[in-house]
Amino acid sequence: MTEEEWPILSKSAWIEDDTLIIVDETKLPFKLEYIKGSSYHDAVRAIKEMRTRAAGQLYTVLYAMLLTARKNKNKKPEEILKILKEAADALGNARPTFPLKAISHSIYKYALEAYNGGKDVVEAVEHIVAATIKKHEERIMKIAQNASQLIKDGDTVLTHCNISGILVLIARECRKQGKNVKFIATETRPYLQGARLTAWELKQDGFPVTLITDNAVAYVMWKKMVDLVIVGADRCALNGDIANKIGTYQIAMAAFEHNVPFYVIAWPDPAIPTGKDITIEERDPNEVLYYQNIRLAPEGVNAYYPAFDVTPSKYISGIITPEGIYSPRVIHLYINKISLRRFFDASD
Amino acid sequence: MTEEEWPILSKSAWIEDDTLIIVDETKLPFKLEYIKGSSYHDAVRAIKEMRTRAAGQLYTVLYAMLLTARKNKNKKPEEILKILKEAADALGNARPTFPLKAISHSIYKYALEAYNGGKDVVEAVEHIVAATIKKHEERIMKIAQNASQLIKDGDTVLTHCNISGILVLIARECRKQGKNVKFIATETRPYLQGARLTAWELKQDGFPVTLITDNAVAYVMWKKMVDLVIVGADRCALNGDIANKIGTYQIAMAAFEHNVPFYVIAWPDPAIPTGKDITIEERDPNEVLYYQNIRLAPEGVNAYYPAFDVTPSKYISGIITPEGIYSPRVIHLYINKISLRRFFDASD
Repeated sequence: MTEEEWPILSKSAWIEDDTLIIVDETKLPFKLEYIKGSSYHDAVRAIKEMRTRAAGQLYTVLYAMLLTARKNKNKKPEEILKILKEAADALGNARPTFPLKAISHSIYKYALEAYNGGKDVVEAVEHIVAATIKKHEERIMKIAQNASQLIKDGDTVLTHCNISGILVLIARECRKQGKNVKFIATETRPYLQGARLTAWELKQDGFPVTLITDNAVAYVMWKKMVDLVIVGADRCALNGDIANKIGTYQIAMAAFEHNVPFYVIAWPDPAIPTGKDITIEERDPNEVLYYQNIRLAPEGVNAYYPAFDVTPSKYISGIITPEGIYSPRVIHLYINKISLRRFFDASD
Repeated sequence: MTEEEWPILSKSAWIEDDTLIIVDETKLPFKLEYIKGSSYHDAVRAIKEMRTRAAGQLYTVLYAMLLTARKNKNKKPEEILKILKEAADALGNARPTFPLKAISHSIYKYALEAYNGGKDVVEAVEHIVAATIKKHEERIMKIAQNASQLIKDGDTVLTHCNISGILVLIARECRKQGKNVKFIATETRPYLQGARLTAWELKQDGFPVTLITDNAVAYVMWKKMVDLVIVGADRCALNGDIANKIGTYQIAMAAFEHNVPFYVIAWPDPAIPTGKDITIEERDPNEVLYYQNIRLAPEGVNAYYPAFDVTPSKYISGIITPEGIYSPRVIHLYINKISLRRFFDASD
């Protein structure tokens, strides 16, 4: 697949001439604007402000680590490592629910091991970032192929939030196999990733997509308009519980009650025993109270904005991985094969 | 209770000098604007455009019927009746899910019976409209008293959309009984009645209220932040199924799964056997695609906007009526006592 053929949201950060370029996903689809960063601090800010999210965060972290290594290449290796450690910590702590720390520290650790083995630190970062991206992209393609097997000709897939181009790749696989597939996207308040990003990228590729409010999910299932659900996950515990964008949990419950299969694209994390051990980010209430500077509720009213929720494995029909589709209740049996470490770490 | 003490949303239409005044609920809480109508056609338009809703529709229909009678009082009684029938049909068909037809036709039928009994038609309409409103207000107070019995000191009540002041009346009852009560309001996309109306009216009366997005309901229940749910209903079938604002169904499912009691304020309709027999209004997709003229999704993306959904009785803990709180599964046993007819028709 050429660069041009990749869905834009699947790799929405890169480096150009020592500048980190990040697609500002908060402006899409109405404006295609870029954030230009000169250090990992800019990357941290972009992640905190949700200007990049999902896969965009992976690329942002990887390239911010690479940029940090490159910019300091004339320093002593010990000093480069110290700065890389600071960058890995700052990037890793930008937001709590997505495994940013696992990504940033896998790069740092590879550089440290290279140093301990007497190798060049910056070259090591160059290698591991390129290898991680290559492996990630191969895995995304396998996920799309595996997910496409779940879809029958004429099916309607309901999705929530945005899975950074993976849904487009799945739909393209279906198209190759001669299967028609339609989508229902929830708008996904408060950031409207479903309305702005998912609906946009599917439409660009010519796939039919219908938008609904987040509160209409159970009703469209009751009307038998949904054949299956596919969502992403920011974190997946060893017992098969997952954390994803706020709203996923109640979609899973509605799917369960209506016998609609509910699938999650996830990379199980052996360090997280259960969903209760996943840190759920709570964000600024103003993100709920305003939309594009328009106040939605009267002054003096408070809001509560948990950005994610936890869906217990009970409600999940299958975890989609590059290696196959697993029942969430038994993923611990396959953890060495499908774990988060294998997903991000290209050192093996 | 004096006029001033009634929550504004509970009676948001009236007549002043032969003009129908309707509070424009789409502008609240940011602007208090009124629609001024000179005939039932204006009332029909206001209802269709959702400028008045819930209890506002009841008052709008009653006063539009009264205005129609008054404006034609110099005509022959047969002609007045013919015009009243036209008004009743037009008002009854303005929107399908709320029982507008039952309201408008109860007024028409009372006028017809008066005519058949040799009485003055316009006087009959004056009488029945005033009596219906008086009885309705007494019933609303009884509902508030009954509902307050469900709430313990320190409870948090989650609600959806807006029940036209009834929640304020319930909260006041709790206050009288020395009980503290807090509220969580869903914002209720796309019209944001929860954010604009419910949060506003509760706050005005000094009750703590926290706003959440519609997709955060299951999560706040998972966090044990909700003690009970109270919502209204636009229609209630004889088997205890109810239709209410889109999103109610998935809140009920989430409540069921978390063992959170889910109560509905409703007037069972003996003419509707089950929830499947309730007509669900589907509105213009643009109402989802735009907010205050801001396009939320890219051009070319379609939306689907069912304005209501049906919650099966299985998920409902109790139907709150003026006469008491009933298990939805057995309301058919009490239908003569609690039916829609008794609720609107003050002729008995």
